[in-house]
Amino acid sequence: MMSAGEEVRSVVLTGYGGYECLKVKPWPIQALGAGDVRVAVAICGVNFSDLYTRQGMLRELQPPLVLGTECVGEVTAVGAAVAHIKVGDHVLCYKFTGGLYRDHVVVAASHCFVLPPGMSYEDSAALPANYLTAYFCVHDIGHMRAGQSIFISSCAGGVGWAATQLACSAGDVTIFGTCSPEKHDAVRENGVTHPLTYDGYEQELLKHSPDGVDIIIDNMASSAFTINQRLLKPLGRIVVIGANSMVTDSQKFGWWSFLRLWWSTKNVSARDLIMQNRVVAGLHLGLLMERQPNTIQSAMSHLFQLYEQGKIKPHIDSIWPFDKVVEAMRLLAERKNVGKVLLRVETADK
Amino acid sequence: MMSAGEEVRSVVLTGYGGYECLKVKPWPIQALGAGDVRVAVAICGVNFSDLYTRQGMLRELQPPLVLGTECVGEVTAVGAAVAHIKVGDHVLCYKFTGGLYRDHVVVAASHCFVLPPGMSYEDSAALPANYLTAYFCVHDIGHMRAGQSIFISSCAGGVGWAATQLACSAGDVTIFGTCSPEKHDAVRENGVTHPLTYDGYEQELLKHSPDGVDIIIDNMASSAFTINQRLLKPLGRIVVIGANSMVTDSQKFGWWSFLRLWWSTKNVSARDLIMQNRVVAGLHLGLLMERQPNTIQSAMSHLFQLYEQGKIKPHIDSIWPFDKVVEAMRLLAERKNVGKVLLRVETADK
Repeated sequence: MMSAGEEVRSVVLTGYGGYECLKVKPWPIQALGAGDVRVAVAICGVNFSDLYTRQGMLRELQPPLVLGTECVGEVTAVGAAVAHIKVGDHVLCYKFTGGLYRDHVVVAASHCFVLPPGMSYEDSAALPANYLTAYFCVHDIGHMRAGQSIFISSCAGGVGWAATQLACSAGDVTIFGTCSPEKHDAVRENGVTHPLTYDGYEQELLKHSPDGVDIIIDNMASSAFTINQRLLKPLGRIVVIGANSMVTDSQKFGWWSFLRLWWSTKNVSARDLIMQNRVVAGLHLGLLMERQPNTIQSAMSHLFQLYEQGKIKPHIDSIWPFDKVVEAMRLLAERKNVGKVLLRVETADK
Repeated sequence: MMSAGEEVRSVVLTGYGGYECLKVKPWPIQALGAGDVRVAVAICGVNFSDLYTRQGMLRELQPPLVLGTECVGEVTAVGAAVAHIKVGDHVLCYKFTGGLYRDHVVVAASHCFVLPPGMSYEDSAALPANYLTAYFCVHDIGHMRAGQSIFISSCAGGVGWAATQLACSAGDVTIFGTCSPEKHDAVRENGVTHPLTYDGYEQELLKHSPDGVDIIIDNMASSAFTINQRLLKPLGRIVVIGANSMVTDSQKFGWWSFLRLWWSTKNVSARDLIMQNRVVAGLHLGLLMERQPNTIQSAMSHLFQLYEQGKIKPHIDSIWPFDKVVEAMRLLAERKNVGKVLLRVETADK
């Protein structure tokens, strides 16, 4: 099972482009290094970063490669230098450079989190990309406290859903969020005080809160970045976390729309920051994990605690068999999901 | 004493320029409005903003005008609509547009803070511009916690001195700060772990802390802003609070050096913020007070508490008679002070 040249079933990206570039097929697995663990994968989480990678936005990831930034399963082997994880543990893995959409993975132990007893695979698979990102936005950078207000763009998506729950855990908060109208009931149920549509959200927010809000989570990285800054109270914090607006359905990544978006995103001057008493931040969870793994481990421990206290509860939109990875990704690209989209790995040998 | 057209001794700026533009002379005091209090001034604080105003950097303040952004004294009259302040109270006043260097002032009650019993005039006069600014940098924006590190530029100045004490109150912190070598003993005594010189501070800081620091307070608003960003850890917060490097001794404000400084201050892009996991902020205490007076009142209450607990203790560099205002301002401009420079108002009728 761990022989050299061994291949395992994997979602392979054969080139940049549309869904036709995805193939589910056997692909070689790397050897177990001293600091690695091998995991029999049960569930994988689907993320916007998978779409970026397929479209070719992350040029440092050259196809052919295996997609997938998060998975969860049971440890089947550990390297000689791994002390805190043992065979049989249930672990959650996160690696922003991908490689985890497979029925078995070998991954560095530093990229794994041992699940607390009783936590389901499905719930835990929703945590890394979405809840960690939301956690740093709301708690660490946002420093959200009782009585404050927050605006969450795409509040029905994975990060938005998580951010809503984490904001609620601060107590007595007001939450504004954009999503398409058919999702408004669902996000209200999750804790959003004022669901807004993408069209005219600025005016609508100011109608309820003329001074603006304390925190903004912006996943668009577009001209909305400038609009959103105007919605901030003095001392308000805006966190830019992504570029969802650059993902288009089923197409190769468009350099023109990418460049147009960056151009339309005005830079921030020190003078404006001072005159507006503004705090502007960016978050890249993957790079943060590479540079400060201990910070991530401690945030995940806190998330596990919040989960056990019932303060966060991932919402699973749908679970797809491994072979339906294209349908699962399409759901995200078309923004039809509410909450997390998962893949279930079903193999005979587990 | 409160008749129409009454004049009181004041520090009047007669035009933009050098110290020759300052005259101590009688100047009309405004009538007491319903929301105002009248204060017999005991002590005034001298700040960099007084130098900016004199040099003409704040063009919205047109001479002739009375200088001075902070003072403390005893209330001698209150307007009909003032509920929380009474005659005889000791109050601290802060108004970033100035007008407080006089032996009696009329000021809006919303710009006053009633002193806790037993707090000296000298100590309290050091609080508004310096300790409030430092408070928002370290606590509110900086969100400083035990075990973290901070870099404070100009750590021997008023704000730097206050920020050092406030950072220490978080417990187990590492403090880097720049100031001229002859002040290193004094700032070390105040809590700075590693006093640095302005020349080569970047390399020196990284020698002690290769990953950078958690918080930076930057009062230069110059090309140092770009250098300083490189000294931030992921999730690190940099707060820009001023433009001290634009103040030159005894000269009229130089537009060329002003423009050169702003040009050399590179704007911040959303992309860089994301890729570096960086938080960039600006703070303008005066504008914050205009827009969110309640935020300032609650911060000042917290400062009064910290003072009573002995966690902060203003350091008075020197106290000058009112007539020596030029000498007092020169001390700041030449950066010869350590801690706060004050003026004492001595009049016969109090």
